[in-house]
Amino acid sequence: MIVVLKPNISKKDEAAVLKEIRKLGYRPHVMRGIERVVVGAIGDERTHQSLETLVSWPQVERVMPVQKRYKLISREGQTNNSVVPVRDIPIGGKKFQVMAGPCSVESESQLMTTALAVKKAGATILRGGAFKPRTSPYEFQGLGEKGLKLLAKARRETGLAVITELLSEQHASMVAEYTDIIQIGARNSQNFQLLIAAAKTGKPVLLKRGLSMRIEEWLLAGEYVLSNNNANLMFCERGIRTFENYTRNTLDLSAIPIIKNESHCPMIIDPSQGAGRADLVVSLCKGAVAMGADGLLIEVHPNPAEAWSDGAQQLTLEGFARLMEGLKPFIAAAGRE
Amino acid sequence: MIVVLKPNISKKDEAAVLKEIRKLGYRPHVMRGIERVVVGAIGDERTHQSLETLVSWPQVERVMPVQKRYKLISREGQTNNSVVPVRDIPIGGKKFQVMAGPCSVESESQLMTTALAVKKAGATILRGGAFKPRTSPYEFQGLGEKGLKLLAKARRETGLAVITELLSEQHASMVAEYTDIIQIGARNSQNFQLLIAAAKTGKPVLLKRGLSMRIEEWLLAGEYVLSNNNANLMFCERGIRTFENYTRNTLDLSAIPIIKNESHCPMIIDPSQGAGRADLVVSLCKGAVAMGADGLLIEVHPNPAEAWSDGAQQLTLEGFARLMEGLKPFIAAAGRE
Amino acid sequence: MIVVLKPNISKKDEAAVLKEIRKLGYRPHVMRGIERVVVGAIGDERTHQSLETLVSWPQVERVMPVQKRYKLISREGQTNNSVVPVRDIPIGGKKFQVMAGPCSVESESQLMTTALAVKKAGATILRGGAFKPRTSPYEFQGLGEKGLKLLAKARRETGLAVITELLSEQHASMVAEYTDIIQIGARNSQNFQLLIAAAKTGKPVLLKRGLSMRIEEWLLAGEYVLSNNNANLMFCERGIRTFENYTRNTLDLSAIPIIKNESHCPMIIDPSQGAGRADLVVSLCKGAVAMGADGLLIEVHPNPAEAWSDGAQQLTLEGFARLMEGLKPFIAAAGRE
Amino acid sequence: MIVVLKPNISKKDEAAVLKEIRKLGYRPHVMRGIERVVVGAIGDERTHQSLETLVSWPQVERVMPVQKRYKLISREGQTNNSVVPVRDIPIGGKKFQVMAGPCSVESESQLMTTALAVKKAGATILRGGAFKPRTSPYEFQGLGEKGLKLLAKARRETGLAVITELLSEQHASMVAEYTDIIQIGARNSQNFQLLIAAAKTGKPVLLKRGLSMRIEEWLLAGEYVLSNNNANLMFCERGIRTFENYTRNTLDLSAIPIIKNESHCPMIIDPSQGAGRADLVVSLCKGAVAMGADGLLIEVHPNPAEAWSDGAQQLTLEGFARLMEGLKPFIAAAGRE
Repeated sequence: MIVVLKPNISKKDEAAVLKEIRKLGYRPHVMRGIERVVVGAIGDERTHQSLETLVSWPQVERVMPVQKRYKLISREGQTNNSVVPVRDIPIGGKKFQVMAGPCSVESESQLMTTALAVKKAGATILRGGAFKPRTSPYEFQGLGEKGLKLLAKARRETGLAVITELLSEQHASMVAEYTDIIQIGARNSQNFQLLIAAAKTGKPVLLKRGLSMRIEEWLLAGEYVLSNNNANLMFCERGIRTFENYTRNTLDLSAIPIIKNESHCPMIIDPSQGAGRADLVVSLCKGAVAMGADGLLIEVHPNPAEAWSDGAQQLTLEGFARLMEGLKPFIAAAGRE
Repeated sequence: MIVVLKPNISKKDEAAVLKEIRKLGYRPHVMRGIERVVVGAIGDERTHQSLETLVSWPQVERVMPVQKRYKLISREGQTNNSVVPVRDIPIGGKKFQVMAGPCSVESESQLMTTALAVKKAGATILRGGAFKPRTSPYEFQGLGEKGLKLLAKARRETGLAVITELLSEQHASMVAEYTDIIQIGARNSQNFQLLIAAAKTGKPVLLKRGLSMRIEEWLLAGEYVLSNNNANLMFCERGIRTFENYTRNTLDLSAIPIIKNESHCPMIIDPSQGAGRADLVVSLCKGAVAMGADGLLIEVHPNPAEAWSDGAQQLTLEGFARLMEGLKPFIAAAGRE
Repeated sequence: MIVVLKPNISKKDEAAVLKEIRKLGYRPHVMRGIERVVVGAIGDERTHQSLETLVSWPQVERVMPVQKRYKLISREGQTNNSVVPVRDIPIGGKKFQVMAGPCSVESESQLMTTALAVKKAGATILRGGAFKPRTSPYEFQGLGEKGLKLLAKARRETGLAVITELLSEQHASMVAEYTDIIQIGARNSQNFQLLIAAAKTGKPVLLKRGLSMRIEEWLLAGEYVLSNNNANLMFCERGIRTFENYTRNTLDLSAIPIIKNESHCPMIIDPSQGAGRADLVVSLCKGAVAMGADGLLIEVHPNPAEAWSDGAQQLTLEGFARLMEGLKPFIAAAGRE
Repeated sequence: MIVVLKPNISKKDEAAVLKEIRKLGYRPHVMRGIERVVVGAIGDERTHQSLETLVSWPQVERVMPVQKRYKLISREGQTNNSVVPVRDIPIGGKKFQVMAGPCSVESESQLMTTALAVKKAGATILRGGAFKPRTSPYEFQGLGEKGLKLLAKARRETGLAVITELLSEQHASMVAEYTDIIQIGARNSQNFQLLIAAAKTGKPVLLKRGLSMRIEEWLLAGEYVLSNNNANLMFCERGIRTFENYTRNTLDLSAIPIIKNESHCPMIIDPSQGAGRADLVVSLCKGAVAMGADGLLIEVHPNPAEAWSDGAQQLTLEGFARLMEGLKPFIAAAGRE
């Protein structure tokens, strides 16, 4: 910790700060600058109490942490890339993976039509929401366990693995029974109880970035998964909230190199939520591949105009097939398969 | 719904849109403008499927909703102000209410010292976190049920009512047993399962605004409480996330007149989280009172520099007493007691 | 400057950093922490080259400045409040000042009607745009010099002082001839050439905050005025751009105590631009007064629905008179006149 | 325009709105919905006065524009892509173009070394700031005309075209004399007087996006250039301001497909400003190429640690050469040369 004192404070006020730093378990190291005294407080910031509370003192101008707050998830904790095994599908390795399917599971025919189409086009994992977090209580909330059963059926019949969202701690074991990957959505990205419940199922967890989540907070939310003994974590960027209103969210593709620099976990991009507009999905997918993402999570629906949720952002089956074809040269250029 | 078609589309493409609008349960009403055809789709947007999915069609430029999406919470639903009864304390009436106490419950002596001091200064409700949502898993997570018991004890001994945060659906009945108001924190503001669980306890609910929550989303989150048969809802603005970094959050005081215009629920301001800096709390409280807030939620600690969480934003006991004194002329000017 | 080195770097890499720090004119001071080496670089950050460029070196993790970057404008530079004299009207003293008038000057009758009404209601300064920065080139751009002449006429006939916006360096002397305060608008808040031109006219300058301007940047933009020998600077908060779309901007009232803490300059609030909605103006004005603003800048129009610009946010003449009446108890509570 | 009336208003209040709509030059078209009356106001929104001022009336709930506000810049105005000729270099055609050079021109040797290196690596245009907009008045403000002369010399000796920033209307003809492209920086993106001055030089103009500029505002700022008889406009995305603080800005790569959809102008990406960190530049460049950008604007310096401005984001000469090599497969995959 670095503690910056205000200019022109008395020796007594300075001494009081040094004493408190020692009391809180750090060793103070004083540097006298041109205008201000700066104190380096030496000690492990993660095991000691934070000194940031010291700014409540009138003689303290600022307190700046030095250490990174994340540990297990960091490159300092593990230098090589993690590869998350989803049944026999490795995520984070040389092979680029595509997860695709409808926003919501609506019916058997809707799901099976989509599953067969995305499989044919090259996807290996089927997405589909059974529990849906909806802004309004009057909107479709998902089919619930019936939706999970349809996903399991689609898996049996197509061989695709399955990813679906967990909304409630109380559903954790039920959802884990049917799915291969547990998705934690943007609105629950700092619902730590849910993160812990997901981690404890032992299933791979895909953690979406919250709408206004800083990278550091995202890594720390991921740390909740790893520190609960589940190493199979993937991050998924799905757009952040900004002032721009042409798109529903602003997809922050720079999160790809940042997450790959700071952590060893795979990085997935969701261009459907990211833009909220189907017409931008192809371009965003190309960018994601080129920038080093490990996979994509794409919404596909047989008839987007009649989708029960988020139709504006879902690709048609034909649109998805064309996208997969168009991505090939970029996957090759990125040195992936 | 208003459906704007692209310029220069064919009669056939136009007819297809009208047919789909009818199929989805609306009556289309065509207006031919200078460059574009605009279709008014008449029908109840809250009971029919949204037409917003129509933008996935190439001939559609934009779809704009007309109705407000919230109902029970709106002034159209109830014109007069709701007054939420917290034991014998009315919130939202003529009397201005102050809730105060430590960020986290740390010990009996810390809590009792604070409770007695805030009561003496004029607060009627004691706040204190027993379950704490912390950005890092390595930070203090709260005393849990032990903290709840200390709150209940403080209530018995001081007569103050109690507010504390609910973090997990699984704790809903336990927390409800000890507290008078259930607080839903910013990170869980769209954790709809938790909102429903809180509503079902029957206790008054204080719903904080999420870090990047639009007013409309906040009202709709509140609608989850009211539509689960709990009319005792309060909103609490606690700062939104912006680009500014002088403060931890940007307290959006304009939310006061907006929430009072759009809904009938009481509005509380949390200036401690709102700024993240104790030195701004006094000024923000004055603004909140002047702008028509119904109450304040303030963090107070006997020794902020040694607080186990968020020390930078907690007032000392003396600071809180001075604040309460300083607010009096503004409470009078606002026509409150 | 604090230079944080990456963990586990070689002695040679560390020595290279120390050498470069010395070369750039600072004295390095090494602290060996638990995981990282931290170097305090002692020297005046405002006269030496910044060390922030050092992060381009692979062994450097972060560089953090210690000093504040502003000087003349800071409380360290001048402890007592500046009072800016606008003709015989002191801004920043005990008397609270109100500037009011139309968004754009449209005609003699529109301006004179408004001027007389706002004067009668208690305003001392007349606002009115003659040069208008409009998002679209097809929107009304202001009457130009003709508008300035109307403002000067209104001043002669009412005795009100005048404030108007400067849009172009080339108009600086012309605008200065007609106005008592030069307003720099939000879009030009970092148009440093314009700031310098405004400063050099010798007229008081009112500097609006840019739409996404941090407090530190605003203070530094103000420093451009003071360092060009013009001490008569006022800051004006007019709303920042956020994700919220209920209002056009989010008025950041916490800027009042911050600017008053960090600088000695007067602080004005513009609630009209701040919300973009006339129905919020009264509440925002009350908040501004309570929080310690030195004055208000309010848009008033005889017929807002037919205003040539920004009608949605302008008060009627009656509305303004009611507002001024309603503010009185808050001005008294704030200890102002 | 669509004018939404409040629920349950009187016939008289409705009639008054219709009368005003007619008075302002539109033809009203009434639709009676379930709860609200909606009025379509037919007329050209770009030549008539906006009806948005009507929200100042108590019976009006909302006013929504229907038409796009931009014209010359839009795909409706021109369907095929514009190719901007910079001397003999076409921008916006099949060939992908790279502009590179130092943030600031510092000296002849610094500029010549960089120019030769970037040319060798494949750049066709040399960037370099002679006038620098700096947040603080105490930072290096650029060499001014001396810098322009060095750029002209580098052009003569290398054959590279030149791009440099214009900061002041008063420098427009001087800067135009030395440069091949006039850059308008982010801070001046809505300095309309400067845009007009730049347009009138007749030189190609590169318009950077403002820090908090919506796409629509950016297109309208571009409309200021085209409507002043200069068709040679390029847009340049350089990062927007968000809450994220890992990077200095958030590069919004989705602006590439959006600008290409909405306008016919070339689109350039500046990954150096966009991230503010050299370590992200390579990845961002790959994304930009894959997503359909027409070119890149990259900061390169012989010794970033000693750069006089923005060293943290500048590539070394070797770094730039490696980048250009690494982009080749992506340029090929994107079907460019």
